[in-house]
Amino acid sequence: MRVTVSRKAHFNAAHRLYRKDWDFEKNQEIFGKCNNPNFHGHNYELIVNVTGEIDKETGYVIDMKVLKDIIKSEVEDAFDHKNLNIEVPEFKELNPTAENIAVVIYDKMKSKLNSNFELEVVLYETPRNFVTYKGN
Amino acid sequence: MRVTVSRKAHFNAAHRLYRKDWDFEKNQEIFGKCNNPNFHGHNYELIVNVTGEIDKETGYVIDMKVLKDIIKSEVEDAFDHKNLNIEVPEFKELNPTAENIAVVIYDKMKSKLNSNFELEVVLYETPRNFVTYKGN
Amino acid sequence: MRVTVSRKAHFNAAHRLYRKDWDFEKNQEIFGKCNNPNFHGHNYELIVNVTGEIDKETGYVIDMKVLKDIIKSEVEDAFDHKNLNIEVPEFKELNPTAENIAVVIYDKMKSKLNSNFELEVVLYETPRNFVTYKGN
Amino acid sequence: MRVTVSRKAHFNAAHRLYRKDWDFEKNQEIFGKCNNPNFHGHNYELIVNVTGEIDKETGYVIDMKVLKDIIKSEVEDAFDHKNLNIEVPEFKELNPTAENIAVVIYDKMKSKLNSNFELEVVLYETPRNFVTYKGN
Amino acid sequence: MRVTVSRKAHFNAAHRLYRKDWDFEKNQEIFGKCNNPNFHGHNYELIVNVTGEIDKETGYVIDMKVLKDIIKSEVEDAFDHKNLNIEVPEFKELNPTAENIAVVIYDKMKSKLNSNFELEVVLYETPRNFVTYKGN
Amino acid sequence: MRVTVSRKAHFNAAHRLYRKDWDFEKNQEIFGKCNNPNFHGHNYELIVNVTGEIDKETGYVIDMKVLKDIIKSEVEDAFDHKNLNIEVPEFKELNPTAENIAVVIYDKMKSKLNSNFELEVVLYETPRNFVTYKGN
Repeated sequence: MRVTVSRKAHFNAAHRLYRKDWDFEKNQEIFGKCNNPNFHGHNYELIVNVTGEIDKETGYVIDMKVLKDIIKSEVEDAFDHKNLNIEVPEFKELNPTAENIAVVIYDKMKSKLNSNFELEVVLYETPRNFVTYKGN
Repeated sequence: MRVTVSRKAHFNAAHRLYRKDWDFEKNQEIFGKCNNPNFHGHNYELIVNVTGEIDKETGYVIDMKVLKDIIKSEVEDAFDHKNLNIEVPEFKELNPTAENIAVVIYDKMKSKLNSNFELEVVLYETPRNFVTYKGN
Repeated sequence: MRVTVSRKAHFNAAHRLYRKDWDFEKNQEIFGKCNNPNFHGHNYELIVNVTGEIDKETGYVIDMKVLKDIIKSEVEDAFDHKNLNIEVPEFKELNPTAENIAVVIYDKMKSKLNSNFELEVVLYETPRNFVTYKGN
Repeated sequence: MRVTVSRKAHFNAAHRLYRKDWDFEKNQEIFGKCNNPNFHGHNYELIVNVTGEIDKETGYVIDMKVLKDIIKSEVEDAFDHKNLNIEVPEFKELNPTAENIAVVIYDKMKSKLNSNFELEVVLYETPRNFVTYKGN
Repeated sequence: MRVTVSRKAHFNAAHRLYRKDWDFEKNQEIFGKCNNPNFHGHNYELIVNVTGEIDKETGYVIDMKVLKDIIKSEVEDAFDHKNLNIEVPEFKELNPTAENIAVVIYDKMKSKLNSNFELEVVLYETPRNFVTYKGN
Repeated sequence: MRVTVSRKAHFNAAHRLYRKDWDFEKNQEIFGKCNNPNFHGHNYELIVNVTGEIDKETGYVIDMKVLKDIIKSEVEDAFDHKNLNIEVPEFKELNPTAENIAVVIYDKMKSKLNSNFELEVVLYETPRNFVTYKGN
């Protein structure tokens, strides 16, 4: 019996959408007010979905405390109250769009989970805008 | 890397569930209080999910502003503060159940989006009742 | 010890904002798209707040089942799936703005509650627009 | 045209996570504070997703009132205000983890629905922890 | 400038509504299914509102970390994953209705906060039922 | 009949909590990770509550479109996608705590509303932390 176990988490951060190899006008045309050089920010809401078999002994797919701790170390401690462009190494050369942040979170989480699990990441940038990534 | 980008939107409208080719008793039997000839109404909450490849240059699957503008012209301007049965051409002969409204929104959105995108529409008729359609 | 006990409820209805003694242009100027003669509609979310002393015997201010039943008979049965302008007597001559609906609900609820209770009514017309009334 | 129709429901219950064939220390190690012998409890939020073809005549996949009634008889009447370990027969020998509760709800609902429908059950144990099951 | 600072928190617990000095029939008549002798449970959502002057130096009324820590020690550590009737001393002789739980939380929080602050406690027993207490 | 009319709005912004006249260690001690010199950010959710008499002619306390437009010009256009410390003049010398932001929004809104109205501002910095200000 395959079940998906889901955990919601939260972090807030500053970011700016732009490419260093484009001039300001080009960045402004593509990213508009998200290109503000002084940064803006969001409360990111995260849902991590882990799919696997129910363990017959425990009745768990994964212990929620274990999942919560991995989210804390891989995502919250790494991103919360940070400037994504300046302080998070993965975005030194990668534009921190919601899409790219979701892929980075997926990759970080995937490396810490048993490879038998399927993983999906949902990231809310605002209550009205969100993205979903589950690997290729 | 395929990612789903999601945008929430909102419209409110009046409607009545019934078939013109059925008499009142038959409509009442099937649609109950939703058959009120004086109409009733809802705040419809809409989620539009667009799945495609991340553009390497921008980091976007689709510019959220573009998606927001298509939702506005195809759904909000067409349905908001309207009587669906009387004022929205698609429902002249089609019963405006949540299922049918979702299919109509899907078709309208699909025609405006690049055909490479997969599309899914979620429509909340009330906070406790909703439907999902992603084409055949 | 005075405590406020609150109960959420829900109804959906069609309405039109206008005054019969104004011509269409005047109504359009003041009420805009809410003046649609074919009606539009909402999911109204209601919060009823009742304040009184905790009964030492039961630990209740008011039995939630009693409050729930009064809301059902006075509000849900009277307004749900109705056209407020046509089918609800209180709005035959009264414009069903959120403000006026809240006052009508307050008066109906007040007449059924022990006069020792203070009453407050919160009415959401949409998730972003709401009104509060607690009598004069 | 296949559409998913979804209905939210609610029940609250007490439970304890443990195995009778393990001693207290082993249960405490695996289930931590969820192993409290005096029980703890939750407001469980349930979403039932039913996927099928739109009926051309009615515009419905399934009449929401029918779905609501099945949820009431199979889930709410059976679980609401109950102690899952003591009073719900399915958990006499089965640990009532969120995963196992979702499977039990799926099986109960499945037996009452036309076999043409696909079924998926989402169960929130807390606003931050939830599970999803759609059969094998 | 007096501002109210609010913090949301969460705990889940089992409870039973009854009076030891009433027989089962009397308890059943007054408390209905909440009188289940095997207990039921809830996810309690708590909002603590603290009102005071803005400190000119810091711009804070109260440091949110301080408020969060008091809620943790006084409420979450004391009530979470507990059976309120059996394991929480305040309810040994006091019926754990939402009203009484809110008063107990108010009293515990009040004793730890500077007496210059006004305090108000909002407690959600379910998403539809909640109570508010702010002292006499 | 005095009624409160409420409108929800949204903006997102970057900020840093610190005082220029304190050294880094002192700021770190008081403001912790909110003192990040590279900034962090939030999705601020705003509720503006306006209390006044119902206009007998229109049934409105205030036209929601008017209120929405004032919020847009005074708050959203001024704060959205901005760095509060660098780009919003009111915070050049004022620490942008939630408390201080609420007071600034109150003062800006108050100056644009008829003085007969009472005003209250609720500002969510995160879904779990919020503040309320209604003038002295």
